[in-house]
Amino acid sequence: MPDTMRAFVIKGVGQTAVVEKPIPEPGPNEAVVRTTAALICTSDVHTVRGAIPVPADRTLGHESVGVIHSLGSAVTGFEIGQRVVVGAVTPCFACLPCQRGFTSQCQGMLGGYKFTTQMDGNMAEYFLVPAAAANMAVIPDDITDEQAVYCTDMLSTGFLGVEHCELQLGETIAIFAQGPVGLAATIGARLSGAGFIIAVESRPERQKLAQLFGADAIVDFTAGDPVEQILALTGGEGVDAAVEAFGFPQTFQDCVRATKPGGRITNIGYHGEVPEPLQIPLVEFGLGMADKQIYGGLCPGGSGRMTRLMRLIGTGKIDPTPMTTHRFPFSEIEAAFEMMTTKQDGIIKPLIQFA
Amino acid sequence: MPDTMRAFVIKGVGQTAVVEKPIPEPGPNEAVVRTTAALICTSDVHTVRGAIPVPADRTLGHESVGVIHSLGSAVTGFEIGQRVVVGAVTPCFACLPCQRGFTSQCQGMLGGYKFTTQMDGNMAEYFLVPAAAANMAVIPDDITDEQAVYCTDMLSTGFLGVEHCELQLGETIAIFAQGPVGLAATIGARLSGAGFIIAVESRPERQKLAQLFGADAIVDFTAGDPVEQILALTGGEGVDAAVEAFGFPQTFQDCVRATKPGGRITNIGYHGEVPEPLQIPLVEFGLGMADKQIYGGLCPGGSGRMTRLMRLIGTGKIDPTPMTTHRFPFSEIEAAFEMMTTKQDGIIKPLIQFA
Amino acid sequence: MPDTMRAFVIKGVGQTAVVEKPIPEPGPNEAVVRTTAALICTSDVHTVRGAIPVPADRTLGHESVGVIHSLGSAVTGFEIGQRVVVGAVTPCFACLPCQRGFTSQCQGMLGGYKFTTQMDGNMAEYFLVPAAAANMAVIPDDITDEQAVYCTDMLSTGFLGVEHCELQLGETIAIFAQGPVGLAATIGARLSGAGFIIAVESRPERQKLAQLFGADAIVDFTAGDPVEQILALTGGEGVDAAVEAFGFPQTFQDCVRATKPGGRITNIGYHGEVPEPLQIPLVEFGLGMADKQIYGGLCPGGSGRMTRLMRLIGTGKIDPTPMTTHRFPFSEIEAAFEMMTTKQDGIIKPLIQFA
Amino acid sequence: MPDTMRAFVIKGVGQTAVVEKPIPEPGPNEAVVRTTAALICTSDVHTVRGAIPVPADRTLGHESVGVIHSLGSAVTGFEIGQRVVVGAVTPCFACLPCQRGFTSQCQGMLGGYKFTTQMDGNMAEYFLVPAAAANMAVIPDDITDEQAVYCTDMLSTGFLGVEHCELQLGETIAIFAQGPVGLAATIGARLSGAGFIIAVESRPERQKLAQLFGADAIVDFTAGDPVEQILALTGGEGVDAAVEAFGFPQTFQDCVRATKPGGRITNIGYHGEVPEPLQIPLVEFGLGMADKQIYGGLCPGGSGRMTRLMRLIGTGKIDPTPMTTHRFPFSEIEAAFEMMTTKQDGIIKPLIQFA
Repeated sequence: MPDTMRAFVIKGVGQTAVVEKPIPEPGPNEAVVRTTAALICTSDVHTVRGAIPVPADRTLGHESVGVIHSLGSAVTGFEIGQRVVVGAVTPCFACLPCQRGFTSQCQGMLGGYKFTTQMDGNMAEYFLVPAAAANMAVIPDDITDEQAVYCTDMLSTGFLGVEHCELQLGETIAIFAQGPVGLAATIGARLSGAGFIIAVESRPERQKLAQLFGADAIVDFTAGDPVEQILALTGGEGVDAAVEAFGFPQTFQDCVRATKPGGRITNIGYHGEVPEPLQIPLVEFGLGMADKQIYGGLCPGGSGRMTRLMRLIGTGKIDPTPMTTHRFPFSEIEAAFEMMTTKQDGIIKPLIQFA
Repeated sequence: MPDTMRAFVIKGVGQTAVVEKPIPEPGPNEAVVRTTAALICTSDVHTVRGAIPVPADRTLGHESVGVIHSLGSAVTGFEIGQRVVVGAVTPCFACLPCQRGFTSQCQGMLGGYKFTTQMDGNMAEYFLVPAAAANMAVIPDDITDEQAVYCTDMLSTGFLGVEHCELQLGETIAIFAQGPVGLAATIGARLSGAGFIIAVESRPERQKLAQLFGADAIVDFTAGDPVEQILALTGGEGVDAAVEAFGFPQTFQDCVRATKPGGRITNIGYHGEVPEPLQIPLVEFGLGMADKQIYGGLCPGGSGRMTRLMRLIGTGKIDPTPMTTHRFPFSEIEAAFEMMTTKQDGIIKPLIQFA
Repeated sequence: MPDTMRAFVIKGVGQTAVVEKPIPEPGPNEAVVRTTAALICTSDVHTVRGAIPVPADRTLGHESVGVIHSLGSAVTGFEIGQRVVVGAVTPCFACLPCQRGFTSQCQGMLGGYKFTTQMDGNMAEYFLVPAAAANMAVIPDDITDEQAVYCTDMLSTGFLGVEHCELQLGETIAIFAQGPVGLAATIGARLSGAGFIIAVESRPERQKLAQLFGADAIVDFTAGDPVEQILALTGGEGVDAAVEAFGFPQTFQDCVRATKPGGRITNIGYHGEVPEPLQIPLVEFGLGMADKQIYGGLCPGGSGRMTRLMRLIGTGKIDPTPMTTHRFPFSEIEAAFEMMTTKQDGIIKPLIQFA
Repeated sequence: MPDTMRAFVIKGVGQTAVVEKPIPEPGPNEAVVRTTAALICTSDVHTVRGAIPVPADRTLGHESVGVIHSLGSAVTGFEIGQRVVVGAVTPCFACLPCQRGFTSQCQGMLGGYKFTTQMDGNMAEYFLVPAAAANMAVIPDDITDEQAVYCTDMLSTGFLGVEHCELQLGETIAIFAQGPVGLAATIGARLSGAGFIIAVESRPERQKLAQLFGADAIVDFTAGDPVEQILALTGGEGVDAAVEAFGFPQTFQDCVRATKPGGRITNIGYHGEVPEPLQIPLVEFGLGMADKQIYGGLCPGGSGRMTRLMRLIGTGKIDPTPMTTHRFPFSEIEAAFEMMTTKQDGIIKPLIQFA
C-alpha cells in the first residue's frame, strides 16, 4: 500500500499545483476515503483568486466521493471498502450552532465549510472526513459515483435555496442565474411543487438545461430588465419567491424587486467578489413592511441529507448528470481547473475521475 | 331566461331524486353560478346513507364548476359569464377560525363545509356561492372544466394530507388507500419532493393509477400486514410520514405503526362510518413520547388555493383526469350516483356534464 | 341625534385642522363606531410631513376604540352599543394576500393599512370600519378603553417584530429603540420567553420604561457603538434575534451586525424618512451565507388578534398603559399633535379622550 | 483519590440498594462528572416497578449536576473542575434521527434516554456522560446547583409540552395534572405568552404552586368533568392547546375533548402504566377532520437547551425551586426514594445533596 498520494493544491493567489502528500491518518472520530470521483466548484476558483486566505499547499476541493480507506477508533457503523458520499460541509454536529440546526455555521460563521478553509480539501487521491459517523453516507448500488457527487454541494446548495422559499404547492418562483447551483435550484423548485418556474439566464446552453430541469419560462436579462420581464410573466404581481444563485449586488436587488408582498428571497450566491453591502430597494421592500423575508444560507451537512438526496436519484425523480459537460482524469486536473476558471467551451461541471 | 332549475336532492335516508327548484338569488356577498361540470363524491354517498342529518330536498354535491350567472351587490372583481371554480369548502373568511387560517373550521367544527350540510349543494343546474369574492377563482383558458373540477375537493384534500406531512425533500411516505383522495395524495407526494412513495391498495386498476401518479412501490394489504410490508420496503425503519386516506380504524392505527420515530401521520379519511374512537397503538407511539405527530384535517377553502392548484395543471405538472372513469350527462345523475354507491365497474370518479 | 361630527384632518403638507364632517353611513359590510379614546401615532406625523400623499381634508388617525353606532345590513354577530376595538390595519380578509395570511398586504403592498391612506382615519368623533365583522372585537368589561386602544397598533406592531424572531425559549434578543413600538416589542420579548433582552435606547425615561417592561440590559448608543456593546454583553457571540424599531438605515445595519449566525432580524421601523436602500453589511451577513433571516412586516389585522392581545391584558400578564405620558380631551387634539411632532416633554403616547 | 463510589441501583423489580462501584473511566468522547446534586424522578419509580426491563445493579437516576472529574481524549472546550449540568437525555448528535432534530429518538425510538436504560444512571457519586462535548453545559456562577438540576428534565420536559403547542401570543391552554412536569409546563405556558392558563389538579398544595407559577384558573377534576369545566371557563369554545402531563388514558382523551377545532394536544405523560391503546374521541376529533394536531414527545438533549433554560433562571424570569418540597443527603437516598414512591407528605420533588 502506498503511503503518499497526489493532491491538487493552491500554492498562492492565482497559483495551483499537483503535489505529493502523505495519505492522512484518521483521528478517533475521523475516516479516510479513497477518492473515486470529484467535481470542480467555482468556489475553488474564488479561493485561488484570493477570496479566502488559505495557507500555501492547502488541498483544494470539496465535492468528492470514494471508498472508505480507514476508520478512526471511535467511528462505528461503517466498514472499510464501502462507497460513501461526503457533503461539502462537514459539521461537528456537537457545538451549539450544530445543535440548533445551523450545521453550516458549525463553531462559528460558515464554520461548517471546513474543506480547504480549515483543513485539506478533497481534490486528492485520499481525503480525511471529520466527524465521520455523521458525515459519511453509504452510496446505494443503484447510484453511480457521478450521480452521488452532485449531492455533495450542487444539489444540496440549490435545494437549500428552494427550501428556504417555503413554497406552498403551486406558487411561483424565479431563479436568478442557471449556473450549476441555479440549475440545481430549478430541479429543486420542480421537486417542491412550484407552479410556475422562471429561470433567469442568457446563455443558450444553460437555458436549455433549465428547461430540461423544469423551468416553465426563461428570462434573458440581456434582453431587458429581468424584473420587468418577470412582472410581465406574472400578470404584474411578481413571484412568490426568488432565489439569488449568482452572487452579484444587482441580482440580489432584483430578487427583492421581483417578489410580491409576502414574498421570500433566498440567497445561495457567493457575494465575496464585490466587496460592498447588499442593498434592499426601499419601495419594493414596502419601506420595511411588505412582509418580505430574506434568507441567506450555506448548504447544511450530514449523512441524512445526503441519503435523502440520493434517494431522489435512486427512484428516478431527479438526475443532475446532464450538468456534466466535461470529463477529465485526475491527471488532467490542472487543465480542467483552468477551463473552469475561464468558463470555456460552455463548461458547466467537469467531472474528475480517479483511477 | 328560466327561473327554475333541476337539482339532485336527498329526500330522506337512502333516497334521492331530481327535483325542480327556483334558481337562487344572490345576497350582497354571494354569487350564483350556472353549472357546467361536476364530480360525484363518496361523501355524498355517506350523506345519503344518513351520516349527516340534512333536511329533505336538500341539494347534494360540492364538486362543481361553471359560469357566473349573477353577482351580489357587494361582490367586486368578477363579471357575469366568467368560468369559475368554487372549492368544496366555502368559508366566510371573517370569523375567528378563518382569521386563524383554519378555514375549514369556519364558525365552528367542520363549518367550512357548507354545501349540503348548511345550504343547498351544487349538483344542480345553478348554485349559490357564499362569500363569493373569496371563494370563486376564474378558470384560465388553458384549463378544461374537467381539470378544474378536480381542484374543488380531490386535489385539495389529497394535497392537504401531504402538506401536513411537512416532508423534507427525499423523505419516505406511505399513502393508505388509493381511492380518488388517496390518488390525489400520491400526486401530491410526488409533487412535494417525497423520495420514496408507497401506495397501499389492493385493486389492480387503482394500483395502476397510483403508479401513473408517482407511487414507487405498491403494497397490497390483502397479501399480508401492510405495515410489515412497509417496514420491509424501508429497511425495517418505517416511513417518515403516512397518510390515512381510507377512513377506517385499523388503517389509522397502521399509519401510526408504519412511521418511524419523528414520523407524521395525517388523516384525510372520513371516520364517520365506524362510530368508535380512533386508537393509537401504544408501543409504536413510544408510550406517548416517540416524537410522532398526528394531524386530522379537512381541505381549506378559497380562491387562492384553487388558483395555485390550477396553475399546476396549466403548466403541465399534474393531470388528475385519468381518475375520470365514467362520464354522464346530468340527466343520468341518478344512475351515476347509484354506480358510485355500489362502486361498480371499477368506478373512481364519474364526471357529470351539464348541457 | 347629530348628523355631523368633528374630525382631525390633514389640510396639506404640514397643515392640520379640526373640521366638521357628516357622520358616515355604513355600507352592507361596514360599521360606524362612536370614538371614546384614541392614541396619536408617529405615523401620522410622518403623513403630515408628506410621507404618504393623501387628499386634503382626509381624517388622520388609526388607533381608536369606541362604541358601535350603526351596523351594515350584512354585518352579523354584533349589537349597537357594544364597546369595540378596531385594529390599525383593517383588511378585507377576502383577497388573495389576505387568504394567504398576509392581511397587512391586503389587495396590494401595505394595502391593509386603509385608515387615512385609502379612507378617512379614526381621529374623529365617529369612524367607519371596513369588513366590520372581521375587524371589530368586543372589549371585555375588565379592560379599559385606554388598555384596549394600545392593542390597535402599538402592541400588535411591537409583538409582530418579536413573533417573526421565532424565538426559542431562553434565546437572546436586542431591540433597537424604545419608542412606543420598541417598548411594545420589549413587552413582547418578555412575553415570548426570551432569556436575555437588550434594549437599545439613550433617553432615560424610555430606558426606565424598558426596564419596567422586561429589558435585562440597556445599551445607550450615545455611549459607543451599540453593536460592540451588545457583543460585549453576549460574550462576543451576538444575539439570536434583533428587532429594528426605529426606522433608520444605520440601525437596520446594526441589527444584522448584532446577530449571531442563524440569527433573525425583524424590521418594524418605518423607513420612509431616509429615501435610500437599506444596506446589509456583507461580512456580518456571511457573504450571503450566514443563515441569517430578515423579515420586514406591518401589523396584521383582525378581531382574533385584538382578542388575544386583550386577553393578555385582562389576565394581568401585560399592561401597556405606563406608556401614556399625556392625556388630552379631543378638543385639544391640535396641541397634542404638535407635542407629538416635536416630541416635547418626554412624550411617549398621548391619550385622546372623547366626551 | 478514591477509585470506588456509591451508587443507587435497582436490584430487581421492586428492589433497590446502594452499592459500591468503580468510578467510571471516560472513553474518547466521554466525560466523568462528580455529582453534587440530584432530583428523584417518578420515571425511576416506574422503572423499579418493572416498566422498563434493566439488568440488575443498573444505577438509577437521570437528573444530576456536578463537577467535571475527568475528560475523554477527544473532548475539547471543557476543563476539569467546571460545574456542569447534563440533560436527562444524552444523544449522540451524529445518527440520522439526531441530525433530523429528533435527538430524543437517538439511534431508535426513545434511544436518547440512555441513563439507566442503556447505561448506568446518575444517582451516584460519579457518572459518565456520553457525547460529552454536546451534552455538558457549564453552570454560570449565578445559578445554584438546585436551580440547574431542574433543567435536566423537569423544565426541559414541561417546556417541550408547551413548545409543541405552537402557541400564538394570547392563546388559551389547559395543562392536565400539576405534578412536577405539569408545573413546569405551567411555567412554560406563562413564559410562552399564553393568554389564559388552566391547570387541572385536585391536590391543594399543587394547585397553589400552579397559581404561583402562572395558572389563571384551576380545574379540580374531583369536582366534575374537567372538560366541561374548561368549556365553561372558555365560553364553550375550548382551549387552543392542551398538555397531557399525567400519563393516563382518560386524561389523553380529555385533552382532545377540551381543545377547539384547530387545537393542539401535546403529550408529555408516560403512558406505560396502562397497557392499552390511547383513544381519540371521534366527535371531538371532527371524525378525523377538525384540524387538531397531536404531538407526543420526549425532552430533547444537548448543552444548548440546558444553556437556554439556565439563562431564563439567571435573569430571574423563572425559578423552579419552589417545587423542592424535601431535601436529603445522598446517604438517605433510599428513604427519599420510598417517599417518592408512596408520594407521602405532599412530596413533589426531593433534592438529593452530595457531600
